[in-house]
Amino acid sequence: MSKDVKQAALDYHSIPTPGKIGICLTKPAETQYDLSLAYSPGVAEPVREIAKDPLNAYKYTSKGNLVAVISNGSAILGLGDLGPAASKPVMEGKALLFKRFADVDSIDIEVDAEDPQAFIDTVRRIAGTFGGINLEDIKAPECFEIERILIEQCNIPVFHDDQHGTAIVTAAGMLNALEIQGKSIETAKIVCLGAGSAAIACMRLLISLGATYDNLYMIDRSGVITPGRAGLNPYKEEFANASGATTLAEAIVGADVFVGLSGANLLSEEMLRNMADKPIVFACSNPDPEIVPELALSVRDDLIMATGRSDYPNQVNNVLGFPFIFRGALDVRATTINEEMKVAAVHALCELAREPVPQAVIDACSVGELSFGPNYIIPKPVDRRLLGKVSAAVAKAAVDSGVALLPYPEHYPLS
Amino acid sequence: MSKDVKQAALDYHSIPTPGKIGICLTKPAETQYDLSLAYSPGVAEPVREIAKDPLNAYKYTSKGNLVAVISNGSAILGLGDLGPAASKPVMEGKALLFKRFADVDSIDIEVDAEDPQAFIDTVRRIAGTFGGINLEDIKAPECFEIERILIEQCNIPVFHDDQHGTAIVTAAGMLNALEIQGKSIETAKIVCLGAGSAAIACMRLLISLGATYDNLYMIDRSGVITPGRAGLNPYKEEFANASGATTLAEAIVGADVFVGLSGANLLSEEMLRNMADKPIVFACSNPDPEIVPELALSVRDDLIMATGRSDYPNQVNNVLGFPFIFRGALDVRATTINEEMKVAAVHALCELAREPVPQAVIDACSVGELSFGPNYIIPKPVDRRLLGKVSAAVAKAAVDSGVALLPYPEHYPLS
Repeated sequence: MSKDVKQAALDYHSIPTPGKIGICLTKPAETQYDLSLAYSPGVAEPVREIAKDPLNAYKYTSKGNLVAVISNGSAILGLGDLGPAASKPVMEGKALLFKRFADVDSIDIEVDAEDPQAFIDTVRRIAGTFGGINLEDIKAPECFEIERILIEQCNIPVFHDDQHGTAIVTAAGMLNALEIQGKSIETAKIVCLGAGSAAIACMRLLISLGATYDNLYMIDRSGVITPGRAGLNPYKEEFANASGATTLAEAIVGADVFVGLSGANLLSEEMLRNMADKPIVFACSNPDPEIVPELALSVRDDLIMATGRSDYPNQVNNVLGFPFIFRGALDVRATTINEEMKVAAVHALCELAREPVPQAVIDACSVGELSFGPNYIIPKPVDRRLLGKVSAAVAKAAVDSGVALLPYPEHYPLS
Repeated sequence: MSKDVKQAALDYHSIPTPGKIGICLTKPAETQYDLSLAYSPGVAEPVREIAKDPLNAYKYTSKGNLVAVISNGSAILGLGDLGPAASKPVMEGKALLFKRFADVDSIDIEVDAEDPQAFIDTVRRIAGTFGGINLEDIKAPECFEIERILIEQCNIPVFHDDQHGTAIVTAAGMLNALEIQGKSIETAKIVCLGAGSAAIACMRLLISLGATYDNLYMIDRSGVITPGRAGLNPYKEEFANASGATTLAEAIVGADVFVGLSGANLLSEEMLRNMADKPIVFACSNPDPEIVPELALSVRDDLIMATGRSDYPNQVNNVLGFPFIFRGALDVRATTINEEMKVAAVHALCELAREPVPQAVIDACSVGELSFGPNYIIPKPVDRRLLGKVSAAVAKAAVDSGVALLPYPEHYPLS
């Protein structure tokens, strides 16, 4: 970022008031009568109703549309473990996106607990306050155990967006890229550079969409993850590949797909040249991708490329996922966000990118045209059809898979 | 409450949307540029600034104006231990009052932990999210220990409103009632029926305002608290009285002041007759007071009476305190709410009731007139001067007592 943009970001966060989100009242609170209903003595009535049946909290409180964005600040953006206080602007930013894109009320909670059990205990005890929990910026491998246990212990959706949000949007773009390149996920050779929470979740989702472990190479700082390599945690071990390749340079030869969730400039020109015909490169490291698009496209003109940046085509942006996934989950009161709902979100995003793009979206993106092809494999965040499409798909999958307490909403699809 | 009012309260909480509060955005979030400042990549800048100095969270996030209303639901209103879920409408109601009366952003957090240590651990770990913590509806005696430890462990104001809010408003009204009756707090004989968190905090505050233990009788279900009585917790023991009276009927003879924080109709006509000349009765049990005002005033025409109800004169209402106390504390970034700040709030309320009342307040209360006297000893919640007077007094006391990180605000008094 330029110095000007950095200052603009600080100004945005501090002027005229600190922060980005606040509390508003959704009911009248002016007269004595209003207050007698909102608080004493009237409030005793909803209290009694909820005491009779806890599900009445969805009827008489804000719970059902309230998602907590919770972090311990142990893996903030690409900045690392800066602790809970420093994570607050990111968590408030996420809350802002929830509200802006899907009218989900969201509040950030920063938890001062690096110890996974202390973090889990804290979140479990406050979970009843909310209709859902979005975990954020928690480092691997602790994040896997934390999410697994909280899903078990909470009867509301718990979703670690760094894992599943990234995975869902990546997978949607990937299915479209494979389609355009005439390749199949079942047979594609996939190289994943990075073995953190996002990488592992992305590869798991590609597996559940048809990719095979034999065709998949996951690479961390020590090279390709291979069976029996010393010091592997079980989450990495799942992706151990016995084909013999031990370095990125070896694994990339003949690869159809490269997914980078690692660091700047780690994919060289030579590696890109050694990929198969019609390759697919998702260079998602932010702000600097594993290979810069200008360079990559100068080396390979048969390439489809995506990045994490908004100033290139095909941005892999989590905001395409989490607001609408929670919207759909909350609207049918899903007790969890299961694999069926995630896959439904992938296909909804995938299909939306194949539909004609409204002029308003083209205008908002300041591009000449947008149509399904190498430069448009994923919908744009400004596309207001996302709300209707993705939330409907997720809600339907929740109902069909039996985790919804409410039927598919009559007022769907949203617009 | 009538059946109609009960239904109106349920409707208020459920129509057109469930609950009373929501999240709003305080910064623009429409364009791609807005979002690049609010979230990635711009958000990295405030993150870095806070990592350098945690106090920068007050500059770049909503922390400084955000108060958590936290309960475990173990003592909800007069309804008892109904658990965290059932307490949510009350906590959201409190958040509504914070916003409505003092523009403090407030979010409720219900903690599923009856065990005090688990509750303390949970609140301590999430405390950094907020600029202040309002504890609510936690049963005695656990509430004392919980508040004490959290005050020690958190560097933000932690305030149990059932204790101190009630005490501050009660004390303000009491000082005015004593003045009108020509009595002195130093010599008044005070009988307190009830020995829960509010009663103990009220009596402690009266002591710090000049009342003496010798003149003070606290009565629980077993009668007057006397030295060495079996099974007393240390909080009650503080008020043990050795004068010989063991029942309410004995203690009330010749009493100047009765404070009821107990239950309906527990003060009989005969007891009231036995009080001293010009007695003061605060019958604060809700919704049914210890003695009904109509009855009390027919028995004693030299009486000053207050209740917890809005349909009688002299309502002891916590909303006169907590919004403005937190407003003042937040605006000077007080690290705690100390005794000096509480006493300052008492005197500010006390003095405001002695000032001429604006016509707008008289109109809003639908009364013919309001002037300092037996029927007007406490300000009305609709009096917008509260914000300026009480928050200024609290802020000044915080600065003067050395617990404020910021100077007395230039923009004070608020209006």
